[in-house]
Amino acid sequence: MSHTRLFEIDEWKVKTTKLNKDERRLQESLTSIGNGYMGMRGNFEETYSGDHHQGSYIGGVWYPDKTRVGWWKNGYPEYFGKVINTMNFIQLDLLVDGEKVDLYRDKVSDFEMELDMQHGILKRSYVIEKAGKAVQVVVERFVSLDQKELCAIKMEVTSLSDEVKVELIPVLDGNVTNEDSNYDEKFWLPVSQGTNRLIIETKPNNFGIDQFTVGAVMSNHVTNVEKTADEVSEMTVSETYTGILAIGEKAVIEKRIVLTTSRDYSKTDVEKQSQTISKQVDQLSFEELRMRHESLWLERWKKADIEIGGDPAAQQGIRFNLFQLFSTYYGEDTRLNIGPKGFTGEKYGGATYWDTEAYAVPLYLALADPKVTENLLTYRHDQLPQAEHNARQQGLKGALYPMVTFTGVECHNEWEITFEEIHRNGAMAYAIYNYTNYTGDESYLKEKGLDVLVGISRFWADRVHYNRRKDQYMMHGVTGPNEYENNVNNNWYTNKLAVWTLKYTLESLQLSADKKDSLQVTDQETAKWQDIMEKMYYPYDEEEQVFVQHDTFLDKELRPVSELNPVDLPLNQKWSWDKILRSPFIKQADVLQGIYFFKEMYTLEEIERNFDFYEPMTVHESSLSPSIHAILAADIGKMDKAVEFYARTARLDLDNYNNDTEDGLHITSMTGSWLTIVQGFAGMQTVNGQLSFRPYLPKNWTNYAFHINYRGRLLKISVTSEEVSIVLLEGEVLKLSVYDESVVLNDVYTSATKTPKKVTN
Amino acid sequence: MSHTRLFEIDEWKVKTTKLNKDERRLQESLTSIGNGYMGMRGNFEETYSGDHHQGSYIGGVWYPDKTRVGWWKNGYPEYFGKVINTMNFIQLDLLVDGEKVDLYRDKVSDFEMELDMQHGILKRSYVIEKAGKAVQVVVERFVSLDQKELCAIKMEVTSLSDEVKVELIPVLDGNVTNEDSNYDEKFWLPVSQGTNRLIIETKPNNFGIDQFTVGAVMSNHVTNVEKTADEVSEMTVSETYTGILAIGEKAVIEKRIVLTTSRDYSKTDVEKQSQTISKQVDQLSFEELRMRHESLWLERWKKADIEIGGDPAAQQGIRFNLFQLFSTYYGEDTRLNIGPKGFTGEKYGGATYWDTEAYAVPLYLALADPKVTENLLTYRHDQLPQAEHNARQQGLKGALYPMVTFTGVECHNEWEITFEEIHRNGAMAYAIYNYTNYTGDESYLKEKGLDVLVGISRFWADRVHYNRRKDQYMMHGVTGPNEYENNVNNNWYTNKLAVWTLKYTLESLQLSADKKDSLQVTDQETAKWQDIMEKMYYPYDEEEQVFVQHDTFLDKELRPVSELNPVDLPLNQKWSWDKILRSPFIKQADVLQGIYFFKEMYTLEEIERNFDFYEPMTVHESSLSPSIHAILAADIGKMDKAVEFYARTARLDLDNYNNDTEDGLHITSMTGSWLTIVQGFAGMQTVNGQLSFRPYLPKNWTNYAFHINYRGRLLKISVTSEEVSIVLLEGEVLKLSVYDESVVLNDVYTSATKTPKKVTN
Repeated sequence: MSHTRLFEIDEWKVKTTKLNKDERRLQESLTSIGNGYMGMRGNFEETYSGDHHQGSYIGGVWYPDKTRVGWWKNGYPEYFGKVINTMNFIQLDLLVDGEKVDLYRDKVSDFEMELDMQHGILKRSYVIEKAGKAVQVVVERFVSLDQKELCAIKMEVTSLSDEVKVELIPVLDGNVTNEDSNYDEKFWLPVSQGTNRLIIETKPNNFGIDQFTVGAVMSNHVTNVEKTADEVSEMTVSETYTGILAIGEKAVIEKRIVLTTSRDYSKTDVEKQSQTISKQVDQLSFEELRMRHESLWLERWKKADIEIGGDPAAQQGIRFNLFQLFSTYYGEDTRLNIGPKGFTGEKYGGATYWDTEAYAVPLYLALADPKVTENLLTYRHDQLPQAEHNARQQGLKGALYPMVTFTGVECHNEWEITFEEIHRNGAMAYAIYNYTNYTGDESYLKEKGLDVLVGISRFWADRVHYNRRKDQYMMHGVTGPNEYENNVNNNWYTNKLAVWTLKYTLESLQLSADKKDSLQVTDQETAKWQDIMEKMYYPYDEEEQVFVQHDTFLDKELRPVSELNPVDLPLNQKWSWDKILRSPFIKQADVLQGIYFFKEMYTLEEIERNFDFYEPMTVHESSLSPSIHAILAADIGKMDKAVEFYARTARLDLDNYNNDTEDGLHITSMTGSWLTIVQGFAGMQTVNGQLSFRPYLPKNWTNYAFHINYRGRLLKISVTSEEVSIVLLEGEVLKLSVYDESVVLNDVYTSATKTPKKVTN
Repeated sequence: MSHTRLFEIDEWKVKTTKLNKDERRLQESLTSIGNGYMGMRGNFEETYSGDHHQGSYIGGVWYPDKTRVGWWKNGYPEYFGKVINTMNFIQLDLLVDGEKVDLYRDKVSDFEMELDMQHGILKRSYVIEKAGKAVQVVVERFVSLDQKELCAIKMEVTSLSDEVKVELIPVLDGNVTNEDSNYDEKFWLPVSQGTNRLIIETKPNNFGIDQFTVGAVMSNHVTNVEKTADEVSEMTVSETYTGILAIGEKAVIEKRIVLTTSRDYSKTDVEKQSQTISKQVDQLSFEELRMRHESLWLERWKKADIEIGGDPAAQQGIRFNLFQLFSTYYGEDTRLNIGPKGFTGEKYGGATYWDTEAYAVPLYLALADPKVTENLLTYRHDQLPQAEHNARQQGLKGALYPMVTFTGVECHNEWEITFEEIHRNGAMAYAIYNYTNYTGDESYLKEKGLDVLVGISRFWADRVHYNRRKDQYMMHGVTGPNEYENNVNNNWYTNKLAVWTLKYTLESLQLSADKKDSLQVTDQETAKWQDIMEKMYYPYDEEEQVFVQHDTFLDKELRPVSELNPVDLPLNQKWSWDKILRSPFIKQADVLQGIYFFKEMYTLEEIERNFDFYEPMTVHESSLSPSIHAILAADIGKMDKAVEFYARTARLDLDNYNNDTEDGLHITSMTGSWLTIVQGFAGMQTVNGQLSFRPYLPKNWTNYAFHINYRGRLLKISVTSEEVSIVLLEGEVLKLSVYDESVVLNDVYTSATKTPKKVTN
């Protein structure tokens, strides 16, 4: 498998001494930072005229871009919502003796760049010669965890020559474009502007979506330079600071930008509020602002860090993933969700996908307060009316959660996905189960979860059909998680998930007679659900004794990926769509995704048979694929496979395995490395209120350790080759199981200690 | 079935006394005229400011419009070729006492409009009051069959008041838009202009497609008005003729436009050539020009007219269809083909579809010189290298003819059609068989047809796959003619057509050892073809004893269209695509299309069983559907059904059955009414060089008669309730069969006379 590694291996840093002009976009993606409220790619503050992708984003500030399709099909949504590139607020131009520094064209030496993941700081330094003069430049930047509206930048310019004229020009620039725009439109209009502020709003649309106002105030603190000019135009404001430096002398500018939006304030208040916050922020020194920010990152790491011994690449991978996940979402804002590219790019619209429920919920459950996950569930509950609208658009009953959305209304416009990849609906139900099962708290289920479950069950009951000839229910015209098959019949995973939802809904309705009444669930309706549960058809092959991905899958010319010529990989870049569809090759776990969700229903032999049948045909061309395979491989003792998949998920972006990280990071897939360590290597499960572990130490690791939250406790799990130890750090007595043996942790700092068990390879 | 009938029933005319402002587009479509070289919708010469669709087109003058899709898939073509709206050359404004006539806003009385199909003339008259004055206006227009570059318009304005100032302003206007443009671009640029001429060219493109130059010269002959002004701007030129009319006095303008293009002349010669032709045309009076044109239409009718007694609506339908077909294509230019909208609209790009081979070839074979059909076949032979390119784009061997094209390179960009609706390839092979079988002339097959057949066979052999478990060949991932199913496996029709192609190719290769060598057809290759022929899988159901449309079709919730609520029809406008795909409802003949092609392979019982199974589930939402059903219904004696389908195909546009004729006429479907009469009602077949008839007279018809060309003979077939007569009008002795009895026509004007046989209903 080919890959590109631009940055050095380091346990806490993403660093390099190279300015890779050929791979600048990839470098930018990998040095993105964010604070849940906003974030940006690792763009330079100075001018860079070479190919790159300028991108700063504010969570939930989006635009409904009118749909682009070839041939319209009834049911297509009118717009595709997109988190749009907001004004470029980091720009800070540097002129040396009157010549503007351009990091693409100029000769740069002693270049160093590092993203400090432990403290959430992006830092650079270099030496540049212009007009016969040399200066050293150091830039650092962070988006504050302490004051979400604040982005702080410090640039220090030290003269290495005598009598150097230095000009520093901080800018707010609303003239931005969007790489992902359907019709090359610009989305921003000016509202008002002044020497240190710019207020812009998204342009009107025809879809009844509110316009967003964004206000930015910059406050520039300087040393050894003086303000000599300012410029204000409709969409751009700037200040110029000038100074003459002697050799060894240093000019400093701290550019502090405060951004507020009409998501938090009334449109007319946006400007005033950013002024107010800017003034507050100005009470503190740059050092103080940075320390407050850093301490909050350290706080996060204290709860969430995973330590890995003996494998710095693996260590860097998991930390990079956690850093970027938390930079994207830490649960503060119930109106937000986890976009697949976070604040690191524009692909996929920055909107909400089923990734959240299927891949992110388990991580946030274990690493953050249960409230964070509840917020993710509430986000979907709030959007139930829109999910009902989506189902109606397809002529169906109940609720269909969207493939892509901001408001709950479907944005995606490929029939084979929008109308058919409906298994996503099951993931919504599964997340409710996951939350309830993990926390042991049924209140969300009873108060809100049931509304969602009943809506989804009604959808499934209408979406299946009864096959009279066979006296079975079937589900035609679906796309499973393996998107390399479209419009198939009886996708095993979807059928399974649908019936599971009906069953879980029926069981959960027992908890609340009130809900059954208020939701008008009739006996006739539940009888129908029961009938579907009993008579659902699941494709199964007696010869191979495997669940069949979907009808006629076994009629294909089945062969393993190993028989492919490596030049044909990745298939999605090398093969025509026709060839991909007709091939047996699987993009990501499909049958195996179902087995992963419902592990406890299957014997290890069943899991192994299906794994051995499907994995060899899987190309893992979705970033969501390797982790599920790693976990199942660990379950059935194929530890070499599990470790191989771990590497692929943990360093997917750092090593650019899918050759598309230049478009942005694979944020929602980043949970995969955590899932692999915790659910795979450590074998953590929570079935029927019983927490259990079966830890394994990967061969090339000397040890690993992680924390989890579980029902009010904080646990630390450490694994070495000699010892598995589980310590209760916070909370009450806990009974759990380690290698199928029951242990009780009675008090804080008591630990269960076991000798690690061998697992086959 | 709902419909809208705007025009009166008349055997030779499409006429009305109403200016339907609410249905102006529909009216325009139905009054389109053309001469194979160019044509236009029934737009008014005068200003009409209401909703309408201005459209004039020149055959083969197209633009590669850059592809618009939602999510790109490998294999998609870069552009969609479109016959673009050329300059508006018919414009002829009228001012009455200085006020411009606007037929949308002004009060119009005594309105009459008629398209005379017998003579190919569009004529209008009306009375209009402006500024207190009244004039009567008569306009007639034709595009000449005699001089393809000529469009001639005559406008007569008779004063009904005294002292009326009349201004006539003939215009050439290049500022035209295209309703079907993907990104709202204009496609024309100015080249040069003068008082009576305008030369424009298509703008450059990035796809290596030549730009087209179009030159127009107008020559205006006037009576009772004088030229008072002219205007020339970059894209518009006009002249103004003014006169003062006494009551009863008449002003006349004949606007003659000659259009030449870089398709026929070098770019630099285009202008000169239109000047030259314009001068030639000016030697003749308007009457002479019109007579030459009319006589050629009469000549066509003499060979092709179908007379129907007792049913003027049916009579009007068949003539309208033949008129519009011949207006679109009469085989003069081997570089052209039959666009599904002809010169009547922009939908479907005006390009070449498989409709030509499947539906148009039989008609042109019987009604025109064999050379016309040979030209259609040669068109595809010329594009063989591009078809090979298309196959390579999908990673496949051999030749894949395109879904939509101008050059032979695929233009369509929906994966489920472009990559999957590959049965079109079989229609190319079938047309070669059809031509050879009908004409009895094997020279085309031997010289060119084999190249195409071998290319297509190689494609099929690579596109099927071998299913080891079942020891059968299969074809996955296809879309059959029924486009309401996508990405299905083993579409019976496609599998059938593929194997038939292999068989026909193998047989035909026997005719030419040279071709086998030059095409490098190896024994290994033919052995593989043989193996596929022997081991192909065809879905068949023992219980219903029918060919199954595709795998798992019978797993659907099968029900007839009659169970649908009529408000749900047409499905393509009322249902989501999801619901359509999962339903059992069939857009157009699929299994039945195969049975139609290969009738002689099946017993009447088999045909009937399949007809009875599929027809009730068919919604006929493709204009290509009713005729195939009509023919099969006639075969199995369901004459009421056949007549019902005839009405639907013959008056599809005149009665706007599909509610989309405002976009343009369904040109390629227009062959359907002819096919129904000749192959259905008259039961004409040509199997193994034996021409045969089994005529039937539809209940409400008193008689019908038509001509056909067959192997150098011209035959007239007449059917009344008492007598079926077949007369040899031209050519040598012919043996044929009527009601399975052999008859011989020895000499011209000898006839075979039979008593019509009863057919069950």
